[in-house]
Amino acid sequence: MATVNPPRGMRDFLPADKARRERVLAIIRERYRAHGFDEIETPVMEEHARLHAGIGGDNEKLAFNVLKRGLDADAVRDAAEDTSALSDLGLRYDLTVPLSRFYASHRAELPTVFRAVQIAPVWRAERPQKGRYRQFVQCDIDVMGDATSRAEAELITATLDALDALGLEGTSVRINDRRALDAMLDTFGFPAEERPGVLITIDKLDKIGPAGVAAELRERGGSETAVAALESFLADLPEDAPGSFGAEQIRAMLPAGVPEEIVEHLTGIGAAVIAARGAAPLQFDPFLVRGMGYYTGTIFEIAHPDVSYSLGGGGRYDGMIGRFLGQDVPAVGFSIGFERIVELVQIAEDSAGSAVVLVHDKDVPVSELLRHKAALVATGARVRLEKRTKNLKGLLARAEADGYTAFATVSASQDDLDVKPLG
Amino acid sequence: MATVNPPRGMRDFLPADKARRERVLAIIRERYRAHGFDEIETPVMEEHARLHAGIGGDNEKLAFNVLKRGLDADAVRDAAEDTSALSDLGLRYDLTVPLSRFYASHRAELPTVFRAVQIAPVWRAERPQKGRYRQFVQCDIDVMGDATSRAEAELITATLDALDALGLEGTSVRINDRRALDAMLDTFGFPAEERPGVLITIDKLDKIGPAGVAAELRERGGSETAVAALESFLADLPEDAPGSFGAEQIRAMLPAGVPEEIVEHLTGIGAAVIAARGAAPLQFDPFLVRGMGYYTGTIFEIAHPDVSYSLGGGGRYDGMIGRFLGQDVPAVGFSIGFERIVELVQIAEDSAGSAVVLVHDKDVPVSELLRHKAALVATGARVRLEKRTKNLKGLLARAEADGYTAFATVSASQDDLDVKPLG
Repeated sequence: MATVNPPRGMRDFLPADKARRERVLAIIRERYRAHGFDEIETPVMEEHARLHAGIGGDNEKLAFNVLKRGLDADAVRDAAEDTSALSDLGLRYDLTVPLSRFYASHRAELPTVFRAVQIAPVWRAERPQKGRYRQFVQCDIDVMGDATSRAEAELITATLDALDALGLEGTSVRINDRRALDAMLDTFGFPAEERPGVLITIDKLDKIGPAGVAAELRERGGSETAVAALESFLADLPEDAPGSFGAEQIRAMLPAGVPEEIVEHLTGIGAAVIAARGAAPLQFDPFLVRGMGYYTGTIFEIAHPDVSYSLGGGGRYDGMIGRFLGQDVPAVGFSIGFERIVELVQIAEDSAGSAVVLVHDKDVPVSELLRHKAALVATGARVRLEKRTKNLKGLLARAEADGYTAFATVSASQDDLDVKPLG
Repeated sequence: MATVNPPRGMRDFLPADKARRERVLAIIRERYRAHGFDEIETPVMEEHARLHAGIGGDNEKLAFNVLKRGLDADAVRDAAEDTSALSDLGLRYDLTVPLSRFYASHRAELPTVFRAVQIAPVWRAERPQKGRYRQFVQCDIDVMGDATSRAEAELITATLDALDALGLEGTSVRINDRRALDAMLDTFGFPAEERPGVLITIDKLDKIGPAGVAAELRERGGSETAVAALESFLADLPEDAPGSFGAEQIRAMLPAGVPEEIVEHLTGIGAAVIAARGAAPLQFDPFLVRGMGYYTGTIFEIAHPDVSYSLGGGGRYDGMIGRFLGQDVPAVGFSIGFERIVELVQIAEDSAGSAVVLVHDKDVPVSELLRHKAALVATGARVRLEKRTKNLKGLLARAEADGYTAFATVSASQDDLDVKPLG
């Protein structure tokens, strides 16, 4: 017998929660729209082969795969050794793979530089734990077709504007560039084939510190001269100074040998965000890595003083659309961690218009009830009918908790309503 | 190699389509909210056992089942004879089964009479054809915990109000009651075990006519006296008179022996809708059947003069929640056929605020662009940056098609913008 609970790691949303989530999403949507981003939608399912083509990184292993229809017993037996034959579709684990497919499919109908908004659920078979869900909403904006720092600057400006509108004060954006990381590791002497593994270790710098990173790299058999060079570089690194995002400050945090164009791209982003907002809460972090393998340039992450985890992030993935289209298109995206943000923000109840509970005696004919209700709805009010119970106080308290602001009582053959404020 | 198209029978929505769909949904949401319905959300997946418990009727066969994770080769081989062992979850094929589960799970936290809105996609592996999709949006409102005609009257009033707000003139609601159908078939002499099959045939009355119905029933081996009684009743049936929804008119379209309480329930609904709206575009149709097996009382369908198919429907399913909760709770729902309606309605572009395209020369620094953009966004405008192309006229035409209303050109070191209307 099935339980009455939602599937493991997934959630039901009751009215108050649902309304709160929709209000937060409406604010984000409105800000993204103001910044010239256009919302699109793709199906929740994509072809199995597309979701398991190596683009999705670790998320591919977490995909929910959909059983192929019409399988007979023989086909199932044949699929025992290769279970991928059991599935032809899967639920998306992110919005980036579907967007790349969408762009490849509809490029001719889209503007040369396409600014997309996607606000939609994704699914991952994560081990359920506090704050990790198997169905959760992502809010992504992406710019396709623009290789310049204009793209990053528009993404960061729109995102900071949305966070401002949500009342999240004090957010900052940590930035790095995958090409800078690669050049840095090259400078230290890590051979190209070691670098992906080295990045995985460097990604833990915040948690295990410079000594921990050096120890783990040695344990993994990293070249000793390279590990020593990294160790010594980390020891000499200046304290990062938030707000300082000039070429000089960035240079001071990079070894010699990192190409000038990367520094110029980064400072170009910073200057543009300052021009748009008066100030740029940007921090260059030469050891920001971000997990996904598809990033090819700028990467960034939202930090907030109240929480230790990031509230979102993104980066350039100039190579991905080429895998769909057969022709490279520059692309960069920024994703807000909606599930984390919705827990943090304080959003006032939507108090637009009045909301009236009509408490009626048991013997009031349905026609009279509907007439009173319609008259109030026609004034612009939101109206809920409630049959009077012994505990009228409890009934009104519950309505108030649901956002109702006024009430009236109705007896049989009563002509006019006397609407009084609640609370 | 996967294609760049969405999976078969599913759709991508480009910005104009997405915006149009969201505008229609916003209108429906707002009207439902005014009528005291509260939006909830459930996960897209439910337990396999729940989706295949016989409640979903023919839709169960169309369910997309999700492959159980962690299956090894032996488990797959063992599942060859019973493929249901391959799947532990499935995508919902309607919103009624999830709502019933939700209500059983959260009843203690909900008002005694709970009015729910669900606006969400469902999935069915239909044979793809024009107007039939494998992912589509349903808009459902349901009243749980109210056995009186107040529930139907509130549903019908809210639905008609939403259709009015969408500018759909001339809609009407055809009504019947499953108990009346059953009593009628009993009167004609169809034994209880024949009636479900007889209903399937009667459901085709609009298409095959009285003679066709009688022929099909005889072919299926229906009792000759019962078929003859039905045939003669159909021949004597008065032409239905739209707008006439009194007890007398309903009685005239039913054989003797249908319990009075059913007629009273129906006329109660009609009187209440008239009280709320001044008029009730209701039509009693004694041969309206509706497909789902779970209906137990009133059933209804939206008709529109421009189309031959129904634009939505619903009914009472007082028995379903009991299958989840172990205790019967009266329930009745009304679903708008969103995909059909969105094709019919004419909705004006959302023209709130200005929308400006900033066409810039290639050499304008990114900082200047972002400064101009931010200044316009701060005035409440929606802003898109476009690099000037040779075909400026084409560029502006495309922006206008995307809902932009004004434009300005930007050269390097230009201080002020001269915003001009488009078109």
